[in-house]
Amino acid sequence: MKNQQIVLAERPEGIPGPQHFSDKTTDIELTPPEGQITVKNLFLSIDPAMRGWVSVEENYLPPVGIGEVMRSVAVARVVATSHPDYAEGDYVYGMFGWQEYCITDPAMMVRKLNPELAPVSTALGAIGPNGLTAYFALFENGEIKKGDTVVISTAAGGVGSIAGQIAKLTGCIVIGLTGSDEKVAMCTEEFGYDHALNYKTCNDLEAAIKELAPNGVNVFFDNTSGSIADAVYPTLAMHARAIQVGTAAIDTWLPVPIGPRRDRYILTKRLKVSGFVILDHYDKFTEALTQLATWYNQGQLNYRESITYGLENAPTALAQLYEGANLGKQLICVADDND
Amino acid sequence: MKNQQIVLAERPEGIPGPQHFSDKTTDIELTPPEGQITVKNLFLSIDPAMRGWVSVEENYLPPVGIGEVMRSVAVARVVATSHPDYAEGDYVYGMFGWQEYCITDPAMMVRKLNPELAPVSTALGAIGPNGLTAYFALFENGEIKKGDTVVISTAAGGVGSIAGQIAKLTGCIVIGLTGSDEKVAMCTEEFGYDHALNYKTCNDLEAAIKELAPNGVNVFFDNTSGSIADAVYPTLAMHARAIQVGTAAIDTWLPVPIGPRRDRYILTKRLKVSGFVILDHYDKFTEALTQLATWYNQGQLNYRESITYGLENAPTALAQLYEGANLGKQLICVADDND
Repeated sequence: MKNQQIVLAERPEGIPGPQHFSDKTTDIELTPPEGQITVKNLFLSIDPAMRGWVSVEENYLPPVGIGEVMRSVAVARVVATSHPDYAEGDYVYGMFGWQEYCITDPAMMVRKLNPELAPVSTALGAIGPNGLTAYFALFENGEIKKGDTVVISTAAGGVGSIAGQIAKLTGCIVIGLTGSDEKVAMCTEEFGYDHALNYKTCNDLEAAIKELAPNGVNVFFDNTSGSIADAVYPTLAMHARAIQVGTAAIDTWLPVPIGPRRDRYILTKRLKVSGFVILDHYDKFTEALTQLATWYNQGQLNYRESITYGLENAPTALAQLYEGANLGKQLICVADDND
Repeated sequence: MKNQQIVLAERPEGIPGPQHFSDKTTDIELTPPEGQITVKNLFLSIDPAMRGWVSVEENYLPPVGIGEVMRSVAVARVVATSHPDYAEGDYVYGMFGWQEYCITDPAMMVRKLNPELAPVSTALGAIGPNGLTAYFALFENGEIKKGDTVVISTAAGGVGSIAGQIAKLTGCIVIGLTGSDEKVAMCTEEFGYDHALNYKTCNDLEAAIKELAPNGVNVFFDNTSGSIADAVYPTLAMHARAIQVGTAAIDTWLPVPIGPRRDRYILTKRLKVSGFVILDHYDKFTEALTQLATWYNQGQLNYRESITYGLENAPTALAQLYEGANLGKQLICVADDND
């Protein structure tokens, strides 16, 4: 059986794009080894974290090797099984990579999906890592509660838009920071933010936030780092929580960029600053997914998908992600569910 | 009755010294108003935080005004009382300022001292704010436990030396960072640090710490900020805790100095960075003071005092504190207990 793949051809400096990947075709057996499953990918997730996965910089996963299939989370269907817990036709979520088929040991972070909970593609976004990231980062690291003022950077993005809505559902005052007037409008009109600011055109972002949050910001959900975060730190209230969920505004950490020191704010305001990686929260996924699906099915979570068809378009879709043009969660549809 | 005082004459830019203060003599009544007490200062505490108290920068207490008595914590004896809970002769701890006598409302953070627990002067150091700071910062923010590797900056100082000993008593591997070879020797010989490094002469502090802590540093008790902290962040282990207890290495925060961004470490290593101010922990002082006094009386806490006699020497002692020359907790003895 033929398996189309996209492999890392060259390690990018900065933003990865089509020039760093190449196509490959391999032969695989349909029947997997004992204890494993063969899955057929339906949807691939295109994620900001992928830039880190192909870099040699310090990260929470080892870098993808040159010549290796590009790492990617995906939703797939089991097409052959040698594992007693998995049946042909099961929907699964896992790190199946940029390829048509994947033979894998389900112990490697594979999760079965319940297609009755919500459409399976949402397992790559709102009822998946994006929703889980927003949920645990806000409730566990951010300790959000009713009445808190919450600032969210990349406010209209896949994670940020869910975070904004969860904060609103919790009774917070929510301010979004985003990079275009179109996204500002999405924040307030579609995602229910109380306020949204375009950090690219705002003359004094710090002053603008202080005006919107006269008593200070209690929780900062930070997906950007860099100068956007620099504008938020001086607005934080006593005992505020800042959560580092991503660093999308920093092109490279080699060498480490410089910026204003935050230690004085951290000390005098007794801030809690913490890093968040969703893999740490695997044990508590079920509770959160049930809550997210409930909100989604009640129409309380506005969630957009931007679907590009064809495995071969994954590298281009990844490059476009960093241009900030995408509206909603970027997916690649690899195969129709009924193929 | 005459009351000698030292008042803030001029707001310093940077390090405060004798030129910023002036002497003043006022007349006061011995008998305090209803609900208040009159105390006679015995010992004044000379603290790094005082630089912040006389600056206009953002802080956790309002700045001392020009012409006002310099703020200072002190140990004193009650010499007259109009408060039912306080008797003449009681020892008390409070913000009594750089003066001979203070008339105060005990509700303003005054604590009664038990002279049988430990010598009353220790209430300004090891069995007082320094010990309490070390205790709560390590156990609450730092969540220290047996086997952790702990790095302490200003390792031989009033707070750092207690922190190092508490970490050792808890079964940690403890590395001290300090600014002279004499203090390095004090760290390992008197305070029981496993290792100590002179950050002024060490060619590559980061590499030196990594060699001493091959599995990474679990807890960073940071009293300095600046380039010393910059060397420690890359050595932190997954899920490490960094506690901002002070920022002694930064001369001024106006304008905010720049340094390497830490967001990537915070994110990928899921660090917890938090600010610590002892005033937040007032409700739990008794438990901690009892534990600290027990260790002290068992000879398990090595604690030095550096006592300068005479109220008039307080400004000079404060300036010298920032030169890093003092060995142990700097006190001013204002009056003999038997005067």
